[in-house]
Amino acid sequence: MNEFNLIQQYFSGKSFPRKDVILGIGDDAAITQVPENQCLVTTTDTLIEDVHFLKGTSAADIAYKTIAVNLSDLAAMGAEPAWLNLSLSMPSVDKLWLTEFSDMVAELCEYYSVQLIGGDTVKGQLSLTLTAQGFVPQESILKRSGAQNGDWIYVTGTLGDAGAGLDILKGKLTINDKEAREYLVNRHLRPAPRVLAGTCLRRIASACIDLSDGLLQDVAHISNTSDTGILLQLDKLPISPALGKNVDSLEKALEYATTSGDDYELLFTVPEEQKTSMQTTLDSYSIQYTCIGQVTGAAGKLDLLLNNQAYDLSSETRHGYQHF
Amino acid sequence: MNEFNLIQQYFSGKSFPRKDVILGIGDDAAITQVPENQCLVTTTDTLIEDVHFLKGTSAADIAYKTIAVNLSDLAAMGAEPAWLNLSLSMPSVDKLWLTEFSDMVAELCEYYSVQLIGGDTVKGQLSLTLTAQGFVPQESILKRSGAQNGDWIYVTGTLGDAGAGLDILKGKLTINDKEAREYLVNRHLRPAPRVLAGTCLRRIASACIDLSDGLLQDVAHISNTSDTGILLQLDKLPISPALGKNVDSLEKALEYATTSGDDYELLFTVPEEQKTSMQTTLDSYSIQYTCIGQVTGAAGKLDLLLNNQAYDLSSETRHGYQHF
Repeated sequence: MNEFNLIQQYFSGKSFPRKDVILGIGDDAAITQVPENQCLVTTTDTLIEDVHFLKGTSAADIAYKTIAVNLSDLAAMGAEPAWLNLSLSMPSVDKLWLTEFSDMVAELCEYYSVQLIGGDTVKGQLSLTLTAQGFVPQESILKRSGAQNGDWIYVTGTLGDAGAGLDILKGKLTINDKEAREYLVNRHLRPAPRVLAGTCLRRIASACIDLSDGLLQDVAHISNTSDTGILLQLDKLPISPALGKNVDSLEKALEYATTSGDDYELLFTVPEEQKTSMQTTLDSYSIQYTCIGQVTGAAGKLDLLLNNQAYDLSSETRHGYQHF
Repeated sequence: MNEFNLIQQYFSGKSFPRKDVILGIGDDAAITQVPENQCLVTTTDTLIEDVHFLKGTSAADIAYKTIAVNLSDLAAMGAEPAWLNLSLSMPSVDKLWLTEFSDMVAELCEYYSVQLIGGDTVKGQLSLTLTAQGFVPQESILKRSGAQNGDWIYVTGTLGDAGAGLDILKGKLTINDKEAREYLVNRHLRPAPRVLAGTCLRRIASACIDLSDGLLQDVAHISNTSDTGILLQLDKLPISPALGKNVDSLEKALEYATTSGDDYELLFTVPEEQKTSMQTTLDSYSIQYTCIGQVTGAAGKLDLLLNNQAYDLSSETRHGYQHF
């Protein structure tokens, strides 16, 4: 099977059709139209077997996560997703795998109203690179910079679930409660990109980032680019019952919540005067959010409190996910 | 070294700065502005060690080729290149390699006035996925479809050099003339994307494609999407002196010119009434082009003539590059 037939059979025509796509899969490049008065937002993420997902992960789960992590990056900018470009590297052509994979791509494209407009298929180790494109009006862009002394720090959803889910899959964490175990594993395999939350936070959040490398590492990106300090109240961190009730200690739950990656929740900062707008907007969509701390004036300083007492994490624990 | 530091040190700030980039490397996604009344053009290509380039290829050559093959896809649409997103997978952090690689990326970004706006660095086999974005006015898009019965078929540059260059590197072809050898190898390692030719052909060419998988395979994409036939006069194919004078036979030169991939020349079709415009425009930029045949009404039929006699290629030879 050549590349042309492969793309024809598994990807062309299966994807949700958007009116702003002039030319999708099938030419040398795709042609699309960015709406007037909107900026183009582009992000690229690569997922590699044994690095970003375990060997044996199902094709549907791989497709799900590849799309989710990229849409999460768009969400963190306040962008509306529109188009995907997928480069798929695989050791051989496995028809069952490709069917399951491309079915999930099609399902998510329809759910998020995005269109797969192009890509590449090559022979190599199992690896996926997705470029997601979307748009946002210039004055509504959410950046990592922009946090100000006194702004409140919030996160969507709950923290640490995905890290615990990965440890369950690796046999490093045993949880007897079947429902809790499945919940945590699912949070690792199928993180929900906070697309709606991102667009709701336009003109409300002063800074925003998605949590991919662990809370402490990612919050440092906010303080570094915003030139501020950060104070986190660890007792406020939203911990799911599945995680909180099933690990040995509060310390262990906090370690997951602060340092394990792959949560793909949004962390954002909100000035006092925007708090009410933020609450009204997120509540109206039933989006879960929790205030976990405050931006401080002490540039570069990270203060961790537990019940108003300074809390010490080992420097190793503080490290977060390392790419190399 | 973590991903953040790596990108900071080798890629951020080194790239040519464009005024239409609102937010480049360093946030969750890049933000850019597509000019009014222009369409966005997007392409993604992956290059993998041992598949798309030989083990031992220099970092500079890998960077060059990765960018060239993507710009070539934009050129084939008549688009002006603007922004690059690079995903770099490598087994370990090799500082010398990264310096050489990122220097060449910066050099090409400056040469083509494009900006590296984002990407990803991951641990894995040596592999590069580049997404290139550019723009073109809607009424000036060059597609693979659009060729009409009677249109003339042209190619830029010369054909088969890159295939011969690859065979030299693999030890499959011996050429004693040092200058010719170096020319052919260089054509394989550093194909020139025909960006200028692509924009010159706007509103002149009826169809266009870049030659990446071999002339016969790529010309079939034109005839399939345009629902036409193709007649090629093999004696008209532009063969460089380096190739023509140094292989054993005309047959061998024609085999390279018709079936070996990686030429990255443009193949385009021109209606009789646009021939003069095409010649004037391409001549004014000293762009080399050659008429190699004509579009016919016999949908799906490929006629090959050599000195007006039917020429038979083995079906194996006709096959071209296979991705799997």
